[in-house]
Amino acid sequence: MTDRDRSDVREKDVVLVAEAALAAAVRDRLATVGASPLVVEATTRAMMHASRLGVDSHGVRLTEHYVRMMEGGRVNPRPNVTVRRTAAGSAVVNCDDGPGHVGAYRAVELGCEIAREAGVAAVGVEHSSHFGAAGAYALAGAEDGFITFATTNTDSVVTLHDGAAPFHGTNPIALAAPVPGERPWLFDMATSSIPMNRVLLYRSLNKALPEGVAADEHGYATIDPFAFRMLLPLGGTEYGYKGAGLAGLATLLSAVLMGTTLDHDFIPMYSEERSTPRNMGHFVLVIDPERFAGRALYEATMSRYVAAVRAAPRRGDPEVMAPGDREWKVADARARDGIPIDPDTARFLGFA
Amino acid sequence: MTDRDRSDVREKDVVLVAEAALAAAVRDRLATVGASPLVVEATTRAMMHASRLGVDSHGVRLTEHYVRMMEGGRVNPRPNVTVRRTAAGSAVVNCDDGPGHVGAYRAVELGCEIAREAGVAAVGVEHSSHFGAAGAYALAGAEDGFITFATTNTDSVVTLHDGAAPFHGTNPIALAAPVPGERPWLFDMATSSIPMNRVLLYRSLNKALPEGVAADEHGYATIDPFAFRMLLPLGGTEYGYKGAGLAGLATLLSAVLMGTTLDHDFIPMYSEERSTPRNMGHFVLVIDPERFAGRALYEATMSRYVAAVRAAPRRGDPEVMAPGDREWKVADARARDGIPIDPDTARFLGFA
Repeated sequence: MTDRDRSDVREKDVVLVAEAALAAAVRDRLATVGASPLVVEATTRAMMHASRLGVDSHGVRLTEHYVRMMEGGRVNPRPNVTVRRTAAGSAVVNCDDGPGHVGAYRAVELGCEIAREAGVAAVGVEHSSHFGAAGAYALAGAEDGFITFATTNTDSVVTLHDGAAPFHGTNPIALAAPVPGERPWLFDMATSSIPMNRVLLYRSLNKALPEGVAADEHGYATIDPFAFRMLLPLGGTEYGYKGAGLAGLATLLSAVLMGTTLDHDFIPMYSEERSTPRNMGHFVLVIDPERFAGRALYEATMSRYVAAVRAAPRRGDPEVMAPGDREWKVADARARDGIPIDPDTARFLGFA
Repeated sequence: MTDRDRSDVREKDVVLVAEAALAAAVRDRLATVGASPLVVEATTRAMMHASRLGVDSHGVRLTEHYVRMMEGGRVNPRPNVTVRRTAAGSAVVNCDDGPGHVGAYRAVELGCEIAREAGVAAVGVEHSSHFGAAGAYALAGAEDGFITFATTNTDSVVTLHDGAAPFHGTNPIALAAPVPGERPWLFDMATSSIPMNRVLLYRSLNKALPEGVAADEHGYATIDPFAFRMLLPLGGTEYGYKGAGLAGLATLLSAVLMGTTLDHDFIPMYSEERSTPRNMGHFVLVIDPERFAGRALYEATMSRYVAAVRAAPRRGDPEVMAPGDREWKVADARARDGIPIDPDTARFLGFA
């Protein structure tokens, strides 16, 4: 149940590329700016996660952005990623201004090691940068057998509830959990109702925005994509204090706990200023079910839960599915048919 | 920024009672059904937390409910609460079918002890029961100097997105964090837009419900409080998959991780069946900032964050406030003027 507003690729312009060929092209392109093998691997893996599951906003279209940031010096293409173990259950990964993917995958890997011993691990990442889809890291931990939570803060584009200026980022919250015999339960949401890319797409299509998701320069809700100045938090005009609080939860765990940059202090992701590292923070939590219900009872309960979600009565046509079911369906289709990429990205990666 | 839809007390019917007198009356009433001193203390503390901060749905009005459940045997008035330390960062509290307040406060207390050593603590509670406001436990950890998260699952009243039957409970998510020199940042939300009590209040007032928060027997959104059969998850008719995913997060951490009762398997909270324990699970996470940014940098960043929230430009009249600001204002007013209680509760506690 990842954000459904994901595709900014218009059907007619799409180029379909097979997964392996796409990953190879991304790897090659990252290598041309001197990215270390570790960076090439982690950054490609994270973008391919998103492209495979249909979260195109965080997929391979970001290759060009990351390349430009490495060229500019904002992002270090060959970071010396280091780890400080601070206690039995906690650690801090210093990403050395490299791409966030490297730091976040390292945090999950380390989190799984620690949780295996301590039952739980909280791992923060500092001196990092944009890490793409939070779900990539939650999924990595779940594939290793752990309930895994990942979050980050990002630059200001979402107003507070009743606010009149951008304040929080679209600060994602992701959780994934192992399901016996199948792919993990996977939940990855932005704490705004829709992502920025969706607004830009509506603008390019000259189409009205949905109600209650965006605001004009004074903070009043608008459906005019040209009057748009900021997103509203999840919950819209009435219950947006919940979305704003959840965005705050992400900022507290990512930036306040780590002492890294607050949302409103970031140099914007898309900015002409490409030479200054942003010192972004992330937070990963890994939990070992073995130390709670025990593996067998956890698995039985998880299976019952997922089966109940899938068996729940549905309204009209739409299928009620467990978080992740929709993404895994997309992944199967894309594995078969290829991954759709937009024309600019196709050109940048040499497919057009 | 606790749920704003909290007051089911109509102004004209209100009885104002001073805090100390109210707490004493609650204590006495719990003692009459043989509740142990530990139960009296924890259950009173949790209800007074809610009543003090204006979350009346979880305040002292629940005294009668808890008394009836202890009389019926669903809830054990003299539980032998035990603890299993399962690893360096993890533990399980067995609440022995006592009130959830006892188990959850014990979990936070233990979580703080563990986090002081391990940097983080994940503590689950099993064989528990209704624990009231999740924020009470998050706050207790924050008052001890830790970032604290608390959640629970509860009985089915919220449909899945596009679903046609109640599935999840209103499963709350609460986070609190220390703020230097002031009361904690405190966020406590239901994963539905509004709580059940609000529907019942609208029904008694014969007033239309807000849009996009409730559904009829077929799962279609309705504003008719008499056609109401289930709540919609946060995000409403369009983005309800986010609220449903968050409710799932609560269920995963509380029930699946603990192997306790799933939302749709609970005997309803308000049911004639009062003799069978419900085996409810809760989850508490405690994080020590000392092991991440370090206390000084954490405090400086937290102060900057809270100041930025308060200084953020506002739309029209409403004040943008940091989570908790509104509750602390209510608490100050109620400390001065007394706590408003509804006529039934006033009678039950001997104030009318």
